[in-house]
Amino acid sequence: MRLPQTVALDEEKITLDIIDQSLLPGRLEILKLSSLDGICGAIKALKVRGAPAIGVAAAMGLYCLCERYEETEEEAFFAHLVSDADTLGAARPTAKDLTWALDEMLAAARAARGRGVEAIKLAAKKKAVKIKDDNIAVCRAIGVYGAKLIKSGDTLMTVCNAGALAAVERGTALAPIYEAAESGKALSVFALETRPLLQGARLTAYELTENGIDTTVICDNMAASVMASGKISAVFTGCDRVAANGDAANKVGTLMLAVLARHYSIPFYICAPFSTIDKNTPCGRDIVIEERSGEEIRSAWYEAPMITAKARIYNPAFDVTPAELITAYVTEKGIKEPNKL
Amino acid sequence: MRLPQTVALDEEKITLDIIDQSLLPGRLEILKLSSLDGICGAIKALKVRGAPAIGVAAAMGLYCLCERYEETEEEAFFAHLVSDADTLGAARPTAKDLTWALDEMLAAARAARGRGVEAIKLAAKKKAVKIKDDNIAVCRAIGVYGAKLIKSGDTLMTVCNAGALAAVERGTALAPIYEAAESGKALSVFALETRPLLQGARLTAYELTENGIDTTVICDNMAASVMASGKISAVFTGCDRVAANGDAANKVGTLMLAVLARHYSIPFYICAPFSTIDKNTPCGRDIVIEERSGEEIRSAWYEAPMITAKARIYNPAFDVTPAELITAYVTEKGIKEPNKL
Repeated sequence: MRLPQTVALDEEKITLDIIDQSLLPGRLEILKLSSLDGICGAIKALKVRGAPAIGVAAAMGLYCLCERYEETEEEAFFAHLVSDADTLGAARPTAKDLTWALDEMLAAARAARGRGVEAIKLAAKKKAVKIKDDNIAVCRAIGVYGAKLIKSGDTLMTVCNAGALAAVERGTALAPIYEAAESGKALSVFALETRPLLQGARLTAYELTENGIDTTVICDNMAASVMASGKISAVFTGCDRVAANGDAANKVGTLMLAVLARHYSIPFYICAPFSTIDKNTPCGRDIVIEERSGEEIRSAWYEAPMITAKARIYNPAFDVTPAELITAYVTEKGIKEPNKL
Repeated sequence: MRLPQTVALDEEKITLDIIDQSLLPGRLEILKLSSLDGICGAIKALKVRGAPAIGVAAAMGLYCLCERYEETEEEAFFAHLVSDADTLGAARPTAKDLTWALDEMLAAARAARGRGVEAIKLAAKKKAVKIKDDNIAVCRAIGVYGAKLIKSGDTLMTVCNAGALAAVERGTALAPIYEAAESGKALSVFALETRPLLQGARLTAYELTENGIDTTVICDNMAASVMASGKISAVFTGCDRVAANGDAANKVGTLMLAVLARHYSIPFYICAPFSTIDKNTPCGRDIVIEERSGEEIRSAWYEAPMITAKARIYNPAFDVTPAELITAYVTEKGIKEPNKL
């Protein structure tokens, strides 16, 4: 991987180091963060994004914060830690990994209670590093399993960014592509630009090409014509939540790709860590789809509003792909049929 | 129709009056054109766009130009007319209607030869008005036939702009919607924004809402999720060229809608004047698809390039929908099955 890790810990300076994704693809800049405002601001402003990346950033960020606490008494130290965790957890209220990672951090700190604040800081550091290492291991395992589905000469298609920039390194949907490329398979990728926020155009094309992978960006409405031309060997996407029956919620546009892939007899794979499987949600219909502001479509990235104020705008952030359209899930425990997760 | 005609002739001032589409949806402004540079510039800068609108504009523009010629001798008058027609015809080399309309104008002028320049000017005026009136009649007939496919309460979906702003009034794909609304049917429309140039967001949403029709704009990658929700009664699109076997080339994204509509059992209608049927092209594979500059995707409308220079960009302007995915064609001669055109 030729890019720095998306989120990293500088153990010497005790800072959270992140790639500032709001500057990509124009400029690669590492932000060194060590204040509560700085870390929350970076999460809110999407300087760090992607559920796993946010979770790891929050965990490592909380550790960096607590190393600087002046409190030497455990009670006061803990009050500070819980308060900072609450503030961090509210930075992106819908990101599940964020609160999960912070809960893990607080549990680890609590377990070290009674041994003094230095012991608690060490426990926090160990947990933060473990959360990060676990994420790297999961992404690598998804890559190894997924790469078996890719032959040399294949051309793959993906939507949004479920790559290194959404995790620590490699990511989920892009992990099999990196793994296959590193093992010497010749590959090309079509990346959908992914309206409205263009994560495919801005981020996926950036990280793939920085890692030497031949990448072509298309608008979302061009996927059908590229598939019809016979160029596409398989589709790989990430996913945000998998229901118990194997239905998957992911970035809007995923369902379109799944329907098109079925029509053109192209395998459609979803790369998903087991942590995204939600056995408490019976099926896709039960997943509540976040609807975001129409201004993202009307104005974001543009100089002038592109849509009359008289028109409504509908901006669902995700869609649900039914299990029957998913060829297989690629998980850290192997390739699974949607009804056998 | 509550908007002025997209292209019109001011018979008193002898000017070509067009809605400046480059200012929409921000501002409705009529340009009065009477110089060769002005008319060519408006066509090149997409101030007037849509094949039928360009054709009518060129015909009426050529008439306005020739009314101002100082030549009183037929030979010199004709040389001037042919030269201006050549210049106009080169303004958008790929627009078939443009050269067709100019050829019609020259043929009409030629037929009046020998009766003096005033008679030729009159013949040019008559032909320009006829080209415009014929286009209005064709669009109205498509509307009347197409409206029979729409029930009160229906929600329709369309892509790009094949409406009044692409013709003189009503357009093709939107004509049935206007006709149905005028006859009292309650309708809603989902308009795909249509990347990269956003004709759906900018123009279709504008003209539909100005005419009082409830319109919701979505990004192109959201069409599947809206269809999956069961909201869509039918899809109506325009088309640029129909092959002899019933395959249709239209704005990229049309094929995606056709595949999705088939998957969700939604009728998929293409509105096409008979002039777009090309019996010399056996099937869709024989239609050459115009590939436009990647800069339209990378930079157009944005302040900063959104895609790394290391990535390729593929920007096909059209795609081909196979006849078997088209429920029916709506033409000025009635509703036709794709294999019975």
